[in-house]
Amino acid sequence: MKRVPQVVRPPDLPERVTIYEVGPRDGLQNESTVVPVEVKADFISRLAAVGLQAIEVTSFVHPAWVPQLADAGELVEAVDLDAVPRMPVLVPNQRGLDRALEAGVREIAIFGSATEAFAQRNLNRSLDGQFAMFEPVVTGARDAGLRVRGYLSMCFGDPWEGDVPVAQVVSTGRQLLELGCSELSLGDTIGVGTPGHVEAVIGGFADAGVPVEQLAVHFHDTFGQALSNALTALRLGVTTFDASAGGLGGCPYAESATGNLATEDLVWQLAGLGVETGVDLQALVATTWWMAERIGKPPASRVATALR
Amino acid sequence: MKRVPQVVRPPDLPERVTIYEVGPRDGLQNESTVVPVEVKADFISRLAAVGLQAIEVTSFVHPAWVPQLADAGELVEAVDLDAVPRMPVLVPNQRGLDRALEAGVREIAIFGSATEAFAQRNLNRSLDGQFAMFEPVVTGARDAGLRVRGYLSMCFGDPWEGDVPVAQVVSTGRQLLELGCSELSLGDTIGVGTPGHVEAVIGGFADAGVPVEQLAVHFHDTFGQALSNALTALRLGVTTFDASAGGLGGCPYAESATGNLATEDLVWQLAGLGVETGVDLQALVATTWWMAERIGKPPASRVATALR
Repeated sequence: MKRVPQVVRPPDLPERVTIYEVGPRDGLQNESTVVPVEVKADFISRLAAVGLQAIEVTSFVHPAWVPQLADAGELVEAVDLDAVPRMPVLVPNQRGLDRALEAGVREIAIFGSATEAFAQRNLNRSLDGQFAMFEPVVTGARDAGLRVRGYLSMCFGDPWEGDVPVAQVVSTGRQLLELGCSELSLGDTIGVGTPGHVEAVIGGFADAGVPVEQLAVHFHDTFGQALSNALTALRLGVTTFDASAGGLGGCPYAESATGNLATEDLVWQLAGLGVETGVDLQALVATTWWMAERIGKPPASRVATALR
Repeated sequence: MKRVPQVVRPPDLPERVTIYEVGPRDGLQNESTVVPVEVKADFISRLAAVGLQAIEVTSFVHPAWVPQLADAGELVEAVDLDAVPRMPVLVPNQRGLDRALEAGVREIAIFGSATEAFAQRNLNRSLDGQFAMFEPVVTGARDAGLRVRGYLSMCFGDPWEGDVPVAQVVSTGRQLLELGCSELSLGDTIGVGTPGHVEAVIGGFADAGVPVEQLAVHFHDTFGQALSNALTALRLGVTTFDASAGGLGGCPYAESATGNLATEDLVWQLAGLGVETGVDLQALVATTWWMAERIGKPPASRVATALR
C-alpha cells in the first residue's frame, strides 16, 4: 500500500503554500457535538505539532449565536498563541476585538458577505452596511498592531439568491481589503462552485489590480468540488488554502454531511505536485482520527480513511 | 438550496464528453453485497434512462474469480443491448469472447496491466506475456465487427511495485492499441495519482503520437484525487471519463471504502464548466439512491448526498 504520492511537479506552480487550518473554528462550529475546551486545546496543540503554519483558534462570537464556541475565552487562555506563525481568532464586532486584545491575540479575522441576503441573515446589516460595522474593528485592530484577515462568504452562490455576480464579489472583496484587511479569503460557503467559476472570480480580482498574494480560497466539499477548485486556484498563483483536518464541519445551509476541504486530501495533492506545505501527513491523519474518536464521527477525508 | 451549478465555461474545453459508466461492472464487482440479476438489469435500464451514453454491463469472467458477477450471462440476456450507444462487456479470454459473441454484444473490453506484479497476480502472465493472451481475443472480436476497449491498470502506482515509470505505462498502453483496441482507459487502480502525474502520463502518450481521442481516464477516489485528475485530463483534451454512479465500488488493493470517481460529482463539475454530457443529474441521483437502498450502503458521492 502506497502511503505517499509519486512527486511529479508541473512547471509554474508556487514552491510553497500555506494551509490555513480552520478545523477548530469553522469545523467544530458546524459539528453538532460540543467538544470540551481541554480537547479543543489539545487538538490545536496537535495540529501545531504536525507542521501547520496557520491555525484559526476560535471565534469571539456571542455564545448564544454559536454555542459550540461558547468557551472561546477559556480556550484562548489554554492555547499557546506562539505555537505556529499565525493563530487568528474570528471577531464579529468591537466587543470581540476587545476580548482579542485582552487575550494577546496577534491576528483577527472578520466575516463579511458577498450577498445582500446573507449579510442580512448573518450580520443583520445590508450588503453595504456591513462595512460600516467592520470599519472600527479593522481600524482598532490595525492600530493595535494586529493583522486582519477578511472572509468573504457566498462568493460562488447563495442559498437564497442563487447565482452571485462576479463583479459583486470583486466589489465587496475590494472593500474589505480597503478597510485594512491584509488577506481576503474567498468562500464557497455552500460548495457549489466549479473550476471555470473559480477562474472567473480570481481573474476578476486580478483585473481589479488585487495582488494574488492577498487572496486565500475557502472551499466546502458539499458537491465534491473543493479539491478541483483548490487546484484551479493554485494554478492561478494562490498560495493560501483554507482546509479542515478530516473535513470537519458541515454546511449549515445545505442538506449535507460534508464540510470544508479536508486538509489531508489537499496535502496529498500538494505533495504529489511537489509543493511544500511543511505538514507531516501521517501525523495529521493520526490527529484527525484522535479528534474523530472524540466527536464520535468518522472523518470525511478520503486520505484519512485510506491511511488510518 | 442550489440544485445546479452556475455555468462558467473556460476557453479550450471540449464541447461534449462521454461518461463511461462502470457502476454495474467495476462498481458492483468490488461491493461485498451480491446483487440479484433482476436488480442489476433494472439498474442498467435506469442508468440508460438518465442519459448516459456508455454503460459497461458486466464481465464474462469465471464465476470462481468474481462471484459478484457470476450471473453475467443471465444479465446480458435480460438487458437491452441497444439501450445506449455503447454497452460493452469485459472479457478476460477466448471463452469470454465466445460468450460475448453468442450474446450479441457489440463491444468488449479487455483488462491489461501496466506493471509486472499486477500482470502476474491478476492475469498469471508476465508484463509482456499478457499481449500474447489478448491478441487472439482482440483479433477475434475485431474480425466479428466488435469494438474493443483496452483497460490499462496501475498506471499511477502499484501496491506491490510502488511508483510506475511513465515510459512503461506508455509502452504497455501502445501495445494494447497496436493489438487493435480503439480506446485505451488509463486506470489509477489504487487512486494515488495527482494532477502533475496525470499530465506526465497523458503527455507521454501525446509524445508517442497517440491521438488524445483514443484515451479515456479511469480514476479511483481512494485518496480524494479522482475529480482533480479528471479535470486535468479534460484540460488536456481527453473526452472519455470512466465513473460509477454513487461512487460504487471499493478498491480491493487499498484499505478504503471509496471506489470509482462518482458520476454525479463529475457531472456537476462538467455542468458548471459548460461541457455537455447528456446526463439528467437529478434522475441520476435518484437512481443512485435507489441502488444504495438495494446494497444497504449510502453513496460515496458528495452530490448524491447533497441532492438526495
